[in-house]
Amino acid sequence: MRLPMDIDLNADVGESFGPWPMGDDTRLIPLVSSVNVACGFHAGDPATIERTVRLAVAAGAAVGAHPGYPDLGGFGRRELTMPAAELEAAILYQVAAVAAFARDAGVELHHVKAHGALYNAAARDDAIAETVARAARRWSRDVVLYGLAGSRLLDAGRAAGLAVAAEAFPDRAYEADGSLRSRSRPDAMLTDSATVASRAVSMARDRRIVAVDGSTVELSAQTLCLHGDTPGAAEHAAAVRAALEAAGIGVQTVARG
Amino acid sequence: MRLPMDIDLNADVGESFGPWPMGDDTRLIPLVSSVNVACGFHAGDPATIERTVRLAVAAGAAVGAHPGYPDLGGFGRRELTMPAAELEAAILYQVAAVAAFARDAGVELHHVKAHGALYNAAARDDAIAETVARAARRWSRDVVLYGLAGSRLLDAGRAAGLAVAAEAFPDRAYEADGSLRSRSRPDAMLTDSATVASRAVSMARDRRIVAVDGSTVELSAQTLCLHGDTPGAAEHAAAVRAALEAAGIGVQTVARG
Amino acid sequence: MRLPMDIDLNADVGESFGPWPMGDDTRLIPLVSSVNVACGFHAGDPATIERTVRLAVAAGAAVGAHPGYPDLGGFGRRELTMPAAELEAAILYQVAAVAAFARDAGVELHHVKAHGALYNAAARDDAIAETVARAARRWSRDVVLYGLAGSRLLDAGRAAGLAVAAEAFPDRAYEADGSLRSRSRPDAMLTDSATVASRAVSMARDRRIVAVDGSTVELSAQTLCLHGDTPGAAEHAAAVRAALEAAGIGVQTVARG
Amino acid sequence: MRLPMDIDLNADVGESFGPWPMGDDTRLIPLVSSVNVACGFHAGDPATIERTVRLAVAAGAAVGAHPGYPDLGGFGRRELTMPAAELEAAILYQVAAVAAFARDAGVELHHVKAHGALYNAAARDDAIAETVARAARRWSRDVVLYGLAGSRLLDAGRAAGLAVAAEAFPDRAYEADGSLRSRSRPDAMLTDSATVASRAVSMARDRRIVAVDGSTVELSAQTLCLHGDTPGAAEHAAAVRAALEAAGIGVQTVARG
Repeated sequence: MRLPMDIDLNADVGESFGPWPMGDDTRLIPLVSSVNVACGFHAGDPATIERTVRLAVAAGAAVGAHPGYPDLGGFGRRELTMPAAELEAAILYQVAAVAAFARDAGVELHHVKAHGALYNAAARDDAIAETVARAARRWSRDVVLYGLAGSRLLDAGRAAGLAVAAEAFPDRAYEADGSLRSRSRPDAMLTDSATVASRAVSMARDRRIVAVDGSTVELSAQTLCLHGDTPGAAEHAAAVRAALEAAGIGVQTVARG
Repeated sequence: MRLPMDIDLNADVGESFGPWPMGDDTRLIPLVSSVNVACGFHAGDPATIERTVRLAVAAGAAVGAHPGYPDLGGFGRRELTMPAAELEAAILYQVAAVAAFARDAGVELHHVKAHGALYNAAARDDAIAETVARAARRWSRDVVLYGLAGSRLLDAGRAAGLAVAAEAFPDRAYEADGSLRSRSRPDAMLTDSATVASRAVSMARDRRIVAVDGSTVELSAQTLCLHGDTPGAAEHAAAVRAALEAAGIGVQTVARG
Repeated sequence: MRLPMDIDLNADVGESFGPWPMGDDTRLIPLVSSVNVACGFHAGDPATIERTVRLAVAAGAAVGAHPGYPDLGGFGRRELTMPAAELEAAILYQVAAVAAFARDAGVELHHVKAHGALYNAAARDDAIAETVARAARRWSRDVVLYGLAGSRLLDAGRAAGLAVAAEAFPDRAYEADGSLRSRSRPDAMLTDSATVASRAVSMARDRRIVAVDGSTVELSAQTLCLHGDTPGAAEHAAAVRAALEAAGIGVQTVARG
Repeated sequence: MRLPMDIDLNADVGESFGPWPMGDDTRLIPLVSSVNVACGFHAGDPATIERTVRLAVAAGAAVGAHPGYPDLGGFGRRELTMPAAELEAAILYQVAAVAAFARDAGVELHHVKAHGALYNAAARDDAIAETVARAARRWSRDVVLYGLAGSRLLDAGRAAGLAVAAEAFPDRAYEADGSLRSRSRPDAMLTDSATVASRAVSMARDRRIVAVDGSTVELSAQTLCLHGDTPGAAEHAAAVRAALEAAGIGVQTVARG
């Protein structure tokens, strides 16, 4: 049972591909309570998945799958219109692959979190949300479905009988309506570690955040995402973790369904 | 318990990719007792895997994974020198993906059979044979490892604690030493259905076959492979099946370990 | 100089990939006056391009490039949101590759025609139309830009200083506003060869076509597309060619700029 | 006309892919006289090629194509057995793509240098050497073919009527027979900038080098390769350039054929 003042910290990891490294997983993973492992369609490859899952298990972080569109060249950040049945099969395929390496390392897959353009599409589009939820549910009734706080995906996950975790982003600016400020805006990303850490505490303890227009947005999140592929990612993560602990907030993964 | 006069018929299936169909799985699958489903690295894609696995389950054929080298353009028939750890991870990844669709369709993965250049490499190279066997074993101690009769892969599979099935090819010519005649030779493939069927009966019942030089080769096989991507594949399969049944030989999949 | 009663017949060719054949290029190419060769991003591969270009040169058909989105699994039929600069580079890359095989076979690249989802996006979206036109123009001021009759792409091509060719589809149903009936509608494709041939004559000679609601649509086209990947494609092409010739309409490629 | 005391410095560049950067091309390119641009098969993508070619043209470095095996996941460093005709088409395709961006940026393609496993195969295998030379020659009789000093590829290039440039590696250890020490040996790579610079001067001026066993190897090279993907690559390059200039040796690209 998770106590009210606990929060999950998650990070996207395993985003290297073949000869190309990405992120600083070795430093980042010990700072979070759950990781989302790229599955090979937008990033990652079998050997990277294996290595990343083992790092996570060694650090005690819960292992999740991070499926995305089949688009290595665009890192899964480009929208791609896939027929629902193809998308569902593509997600199940990816989840299964990461889950196998989790089981091989001695743990069960903990959660599923969609990546990039698929994450955004599943947040706003009911049909895609249902496709993602259905694919996760086909893998297991016991996985937790991570999704943007307030999004359609969480509804779809609950409807599919899955436990869900609402996610917030301490290093992203929010609009007054609670949506994420578009990355195309120069002030979409927060770069000061102290600010990011302070917003993380506000999200975890006060369940609200100050939007770009100065208004206060209510935000109920069970998990906070820390990016691993941005400059200073590990510094942000360390600052967030320290600030949460200083505020008496435990960092602990979300209970499985 | 498999009776002495039973034999498994297997076929490589699910080799379509995206818009490109291959083979006549709908006709072929009902004629065999086990299928090897391409996993998406040399052929196949998630939606094709899903469709193929469901066809197999509906037909009562045992579902196996058919991992290959990551080489769509070359259909996994080109040799590719991969470091052992990368190859092992790539095989586990592929096996897991097909196994997930099997479980989703209500059955457990029955076997693993390497494809193309990986099949050939695993037959002759101890290190690659051990890599394939280890990857299959990491997936499950209960899968059967299919491999060329008399090959190193069968030794490696047994050493890894797996049940193995020795495979023979009724539509391929054999050398006097029991090896397959190279596909680069014009007479490597047998194209007459009656001949193929007759050789299948000889392999199953007499456990021997006539080689290209006219000599007789002893050959102990538990499974016979029927190709699905050659002209007349379904005709060959139907002829083989009919001939086996006429000879009182049951067509039945290999018992799991 | 093209006479008024001449028309170009074009076909999408070279859509095989690795081990997977598609279309019947050997029969189709001699029936058309220009071909659009897949460039390896949504279909095709270097050896297929080489073989296809040689077939076209031998048959006297003008060689064009048929660039598409980088999406083999979806055959370039899925929408993909690419930044303009990346898309422009991707098109130039593809055009250059096919052009090299044309030059190697003794001819210059004649035209550029976008494929699938890129074709549709360039027909309706000014920014994408300009990107396609700019990429073609960067390759050469002498290529002809093929595009849907009445589409934004033709405007963009003219603005870029390129010769353009308006394209119509004898085997597709049209709406009363001159747009193509969506492929999601069951009556989008015409399957009777005689009907397709008769519509081709009407398009070439009368410059109009009967829409699905029975109204007549004015349509000025310099080139008619014959599909190669549909059942009966070669039959349609032969019927169209014969009907045009019987009507005294010459089949001849569009003059270069 | 190249003076006796001039030498070409080349570097492999453009090896980023999609979201994954590699190398420090911005620093490296101004230090060399010619660059080998990855073509998209083992590394690189169209936008990366465009950006890299423009950097090279701005810096006055000659632009070459750096074709490799179609193997992104293995960075073209894995051996891949391709039929000769497929390999030749794949090389022509890659060369053409980079050449188009060169022409677009106002220069003609200067040279072709094979990458990774293809480089090594072309150095030792006559058939592959001839395939590489033939593909380069099909692109243009004016490109220079770069290849390992003393290798079969240089013979094949000359036989095909191409100008060739013999290449040596100041940061690699050599065996007594003039071959490169295998990368699998811990002492295969030299990591001290001063040593690398000193060996570069020795290669350029004295046309010899000290092998791992202390013996002296005669080595006639027209171009020296500086790696861009190793730690300290830009430092090595700067040290080599400074040492050559201090020794009165000009850094200048190889004359085209």
